[in-house]
Amino acid sequence: MQKGRMMYEGKAKRVYESEREDAYVVEFKDDATAFNGQKKGSIEQKGVYNNRISTNFFHWIEAEGIATHYLDTLSDREMLVKRVRIIPVEVVTRNVVAGTLATRLGMAEGTELSRPVVEFYLKNDELGDPLINRSHALALAIATREQLDLLEATALQVNAILRRRLLEKGLLLVDFKLEFGVTQAGEILVADEISPDTCRFWDAKTKEKLDKDRFRRDLGRVEEAYQEILRRIEE
Amino acid sequence: MQKGRMMYEGKAKRVYESEREDAYVVEFKDDATAFNGQKKGSIEQKGVYNNRISTNFFHWIEAEGIATHYLDTLSDREMLVKRVRIIPVEVVTRNVVAGTLATRLGMAEGTELSRPVVEFYLKNDELGDPLINRSHALALAIATREQLDLLEATALQVNAILRRRLLEKGLLLVDFKLEFGVTQAGEILVADEISPDTCRFWDAKTKEKLDKDRFRRDLGRVEEAYQEILRRIEE
Ligand SMILES: Nc1ncnc2c1ncn2[C@@H]1O[C@H](COP(=O)(O)OP(=O)(O)O)[C@@H](O)[C@H]1O
Ligand SMILES: Nc1ncnc2c1ncn2[C@@H]1O[C@H](COP(=O)(O)OP(=O)(O)O)[C@@H](O)[C@H]1O
Ligand SMILES: [Mg+2]
Ligand SMILES: [Mg+2]
Repeated sequence: MQKGRMMYEGKAKRVYESEREDAYVVEFKDDATAFNGQKKGSIEQKGVYNNRISTNFFHWIEAEGIATHYLDTLSDREMLVKRVRIIPVEVVTRNVVAGTLATRLGMAEGTELSRPVVEFYLKNDELGDPLINRSHALALAIATREQLDLLEATALQVNAILRRRLLEKGLLLVDFKLEFGVTQAGEILVADEISPDTCRFWDAKTKEKLDKDRFRRDLGRVEEAYQEILRRIEE
Repeated sequence: MQKGRMMYEGKAKRVYESEREDAYVVEFKDDATAFNGQKKGSIEQKGVYNNRISTNFFHWIEAEGIATHYLDTLSDREMLVKRVRIIPVEVVTRNVVAGTLATRLGMAEGTELSRPVVEFYLKNDELGDPLINRSHALALAIATREQLDLLEATALQVNAILRRRLLEKGLLLVDFKLEFGVTQAGEILVADEISPDTCRFWDAKTKEKLDKDRFRRDLGRVEEAYQEILRRIEE
């Protein structure tokens, strides 16, 4: 499968046309950013880890009936995906308090939530990806009420699948972000990536952070964390 | 009706015990604050205007079947209200884009919303009253799903009533904030105040601002705006 014209270069990936009209090649980069692009750096081999970790997660959730954009893994850094129009909402699901939930609502990081919290953020770098609610999404004509219901329900299903399977590998799924896209035929799919860039994973016993927070917070041993996640999910 | 012990002094009002076990006396002050207390000042006779404007609005919505804490207007600055436990959520309803909706979502101030937007903010000065969604409210055990539905539905009903009646008086209801409380018997009531401190009113023709934005944005003629609102709603 040959890569065609580059369609988009984002913070962590490049998106190319492919030989198929209905598919893109996604290339995972080592570039890392945090705090809405204010912090920039690079994590050695991150692109390779994230491509493979995402591949695994897409397999896991496809196997349990979740529709995703995943088609094939083409190389170390390349994934073939269905072409979609990305819905400009980042859907965050949380099992344990961390990050902005802790700071915004004054809850202690590490607190287990009695039920998962689902949040919608407007995918808009200029505005700093603000938290929105359903009525904002409707006012902005981003999605219909039914689509928002589907996004939330799918996020909760994905959460249940990943959480259970990760726990078998000694990993706590603290929170994660999904993006969804719509195909030409109108089907809604889980798109983008699912990786340590977009999830928080803690060692279930020691609570050691094994995700991009090591980069965000300068905790060191960043590459090792990505490698460790890959090792555990493939073991 | 005698005032008893002061129970609470807030930014705009003082709350006192009354002769009735189940009622408080609320005293409206002239103090004005904005931007979560960063800007402080005073608006001459504001307490008098807000007490009377709130009285009118509580009459309007009670007349259309909305349960409120309003019992009686005792004096220029004093209102007798049912004692409630305030639900720590500020319910904001918007018809037209203004204020934080404009800045957070990058929408032009003055844009009419195709349907009203309802927002929940956590009533917590230390955290700067952050926007929350339903799943946050459930996680924080602030209210049940059914109570949140009731809050939103009531806010929309109040919006419809106030909007229609204000338009008859040449005023556009841009947005407003409600607080709700729970009585000992478990009834949920509209509480607090409804005034130019907690609403945005624009002249329907000229779009002149006739509310606390004149204070927030140093537009001058602040007292006159409060007086004008009272004049129009009582005319
Ligand atoms: N299947 C897909 N079809 C079209 N666009 C996609 C698909 N999957 C992901 N994308 C988009 O491609 C971009 C991926 O690059 P990324 O570096 O993550 O960008 P960003 O900096 O915008 O987050 C994102 O904007 C993402 O929404
Ligand atoms: N009926 C009521 N019973 C108990 N408390 C009330 C009632 N109505 C309003 N309150 C509360 O009384 C306080 C009113 O004072 P205010 O100056 O507005 O305070 P704040 O600075 O907290 O907004 C608010 O905290 C409000 O929630
Ligand atoms: Mg991205
Ligand atoms: Mg108040």
